Amino acid sequence: MTDTISLPFLRPDMKSELDLRVKNIQTLMGERGLEGLLIGSTVNVFYLSGTIFKGNIYIPLDGSPLYLLISPSVSSQEGCIKIRKPEQISSVLEEKGIRMPEAVGLEYSDMTYSDITRLKACFPEAKYGDASSLLREVRSVKTAYEISRIREDGKKHSAVYSMIDKCYREDMTDLEFQIEIERLLRREGCLGILRASGNRMELNLGSLLNGDNADNPSPYDFSMGGHGFDPSLPVGADGLTMKHGTTVMVDMNGGFNGYQTDMTRCWMIGDVPEIAKKAHECSRMILRVLEKTGVAGAEVSLLYTTALDIAKKEGLQEYFMGHSHKVGFIGHGIGIELNEMPVIMERNHSVLKENMVIALEPKFVIPHIGAVGVENTYRVTAEGLENLTTFREDLTSLGQGVRE
Amino acid sequence: MTDTISLPFLRPDMKSELDLRVKNIQTLMGERGLEGLLIGSTVNVFYLSGTIFKGNIYIPLDGSPLYLLISPSVSSQEGCIKIRKPEQISSVLEEKGIRMPEAVGLEYSDMTYSDITRLKACFPEAKYGDASSLLREVRSVKTAYEISRIREDGKKHSAVYSMIDKCYREDMTDLEFQIEIERLLRREGCLGILRASGNRMELNLGSLLNGDNADNPSPYDFSMGGHGFDPSLPVGADGLTMKHGTTVMVDMNGGFNGYQTDMTRCWMIGDVPEIAKKAHECSRMILRVLEKTGVAGAEVSLLYTTALDIAKKEGLQEYFMGHSHKVGFIGHGIGIELNEMPVIMERNHSVLKENMVIALEPKFVIPHIGAVGVENTYRVTAEGLENLTTFREDLTSLGQGVRE
Repeated sequence: MTDTISLPFLRPDMKSELDLRVKNIQTLMGERGLEGLLIGSTVNVFYLSGTIFKGNIYIPLDGSPLYLLISPSVSSQEGCIKIRKPEQISSVLEEKGIRMPEAVGLEYSDMTYSDITRLKACFPEAKYGDASSLLREVRSVKTAYEISRIREDGKKHSAVYSMIDKCYREDMTDLEFQIEIERLLRREGCLGILRASGNRMELNLGSLLNGDNADNPSPYDFSMGGHGFDPSLPVGADGLTMKHGTTVMVDMNGGFNGYQTDMTRCWMIGDVPEIAKKAHECSRMILRVLEKTGVAGAEVSLLYTTALDIAKKEGLQEYFMGHSHKVGFIGHGIGIELNEMPVIMERNHSVLKENMVIALEPKFVIPHIGAVGVENTYRVTAEGLENLTTFREDLTSLGQGVRE
Repeated sequence: MTDTISLPFLRPDMKSELDLRVKNIQTLMGERGLEGLLIGSTVNVFYLSGTIFKGNIYIPLDGSPLYLLISPSVSSQEGCIKIRKPEQISSVLEEKGIRMPEAVGLEYSDMTYSDITRLKACFPEAKYGDASSLLREVRSVKTAYEISRIREDGKKHSAVYSMIDKCYREDMTDLEFQIEIERLLRREGCLGILRASGNRMELNLGSLLNGDNADNPSPYDFSMGGHGFDPSLPVGADGLTMKHGTTVMVDMNGGFNGYQTDMTRCWMIGDVPEIAKKAHECSRMILRVLEKTGVAGAEVSLLYTTALDIAKKEGLQEYFMGHSHKVGFIGHGIGIELNEMPVIMERNHSVLKENMVIALEPKFVIPHIGAVGVENTYRVTAEGLENLTTFREDLTSLGQGVRE
């Protein structure tokens, strides 16, 4: 239709928001002795522009970023420069009278070796350092605008979960059930992609685990595993019929606007033994305690040890965070990516900051029954954690549960 | 359930297949002076093992690969070694009496800068070079087994396309229509993920473009664009109602088993002007010609120039491969990834090889009507191209078309 693309960073209503993000980044750049950042990953381009475009963003230590677009004609607009290739970036800086940086940060953990090597050639005299961790640190504390987006995700995510009960039919396979939930998500506006950091984070629109499949390990870095239904994607639902006396854990994608919430709820097929119900209630108890423990200033490891202590006290340690294969974390930061900072694990001695957004997922895997537990996405405040995923948490039978 | 994962590379029926792939890689290693490859990307781990695991694969210039798993206990099995971290790899080689490589290939275009830097420390004395392009070259020619998998994809893909007509309802939005097709795909066994190389290849389960949305450029490296329905993913369906007098182009995911086919078909909403019908028939004519041109030994650029010449001759050049924004290729290799070698473009002077698998997509974007054209996935033979996606190609009206 048009040869310009829609660029939210040119809209007046986004300007102050993006200025704030840039300022937070520049503060850390100063502390770490970086004079420029050269950004190119999808995730950080989105963070710094509000959209995705082909090209790069240059952030100087002082002043406004340059948006360097390998794209349709936008060069006449403020802050936008059209380039054909990254190799032109240094001459753009020269033309603009911008000081050539001597220490440049690049996204070592978010771009390929080839792409980073190519960007390094832009300033052959400069020293280079990693900017991925700096950007992750800034992104871990959300702005008010970002929290409003995540809050919106939580509402949509909850609206979908309130319909899950209605799409269950007797003798469905786990995969058939998951496909109906995927459809509900998409119809609510779910984007249908999962943005996550790292090589081992492939998944369609989430994880749905029934019965013993919850105890199958997977090579992926998610909290729960699953066998999958094809060796090319050994994770998640295995395509078997969901049997009476088992649980089904639903941990599906909550990304509707570039941000996302992470939310897990469980249901029973028919009824299940007391041990599963007890473990499910233990997960809820852990969350109630952590909602008070998780104040701004608290050490991250405290959340982990508090959760583990409760699981131990309830005699449920052998099922906690997996049975035959356990993971060493009970939660993670979340935002543009599913796995942001901080990771909620014992050896993380950093502290929670106000307006971090974290997902907490104390889960249990009970052999021959399945996984139970609840996951919510929370905002960190001075008083504790504010839940952004408020759908009911109780363990009810599918097809018989309370309609919301 | 179990603490071992299912490892296809240990199965006797996969052994000769994987031996063949390793042998093809070792031949190129010899030509390029590489004594070892250290593999870690999801895509190439799958290529060399038949599944995904956490860890690395070491391929020596001669002999069998070592599967180095950071995973549940598999160390007692032939060719499998359990490691905790990549830093242990050189001592594993030492223990096994394997010669320390002096020239090592790493996947520069498939792994992050951080991950490659970490692997480089494994053999501090070695020289390093890129192995991504070598592996892409080997993967571009498919084995008989791989072709059988892609053939299976084509059948499933076609089975889904034969049901598309039935899920259309008057006044649907493009997105509602796409969601129903996604559900059909998933129920047929589509894995629900897109494996593609590069930073700009995000998409849910494919592209569905209606009317003028086909002429919206996108920052992604797909052949067609689309506005999307959220600035965080500016590609594909825009959520508007599909109006009479427009076309809808369906280019949805064909990945069912770790491999994939790429297939595009178009439908009319009601009826459309002759120019769109003519362009659609021109696309089919181009494919019929290329099916004969594309013999093993033909130069890749010949496919591109032949297609462009036909479009010109038919007076349709201004609509060919986009209208307000054009792309410079008419097809691409396909296999584990959507965008494998070779890229079918004018400046590609390499030659087609027998058992390459390529998708050809001569498409047209007609202003105010939409996109038309056909895409098929083909196997290259000595006699020309064998179509692996044989669903009917004609342009029919949705809701009134011939039921297959």
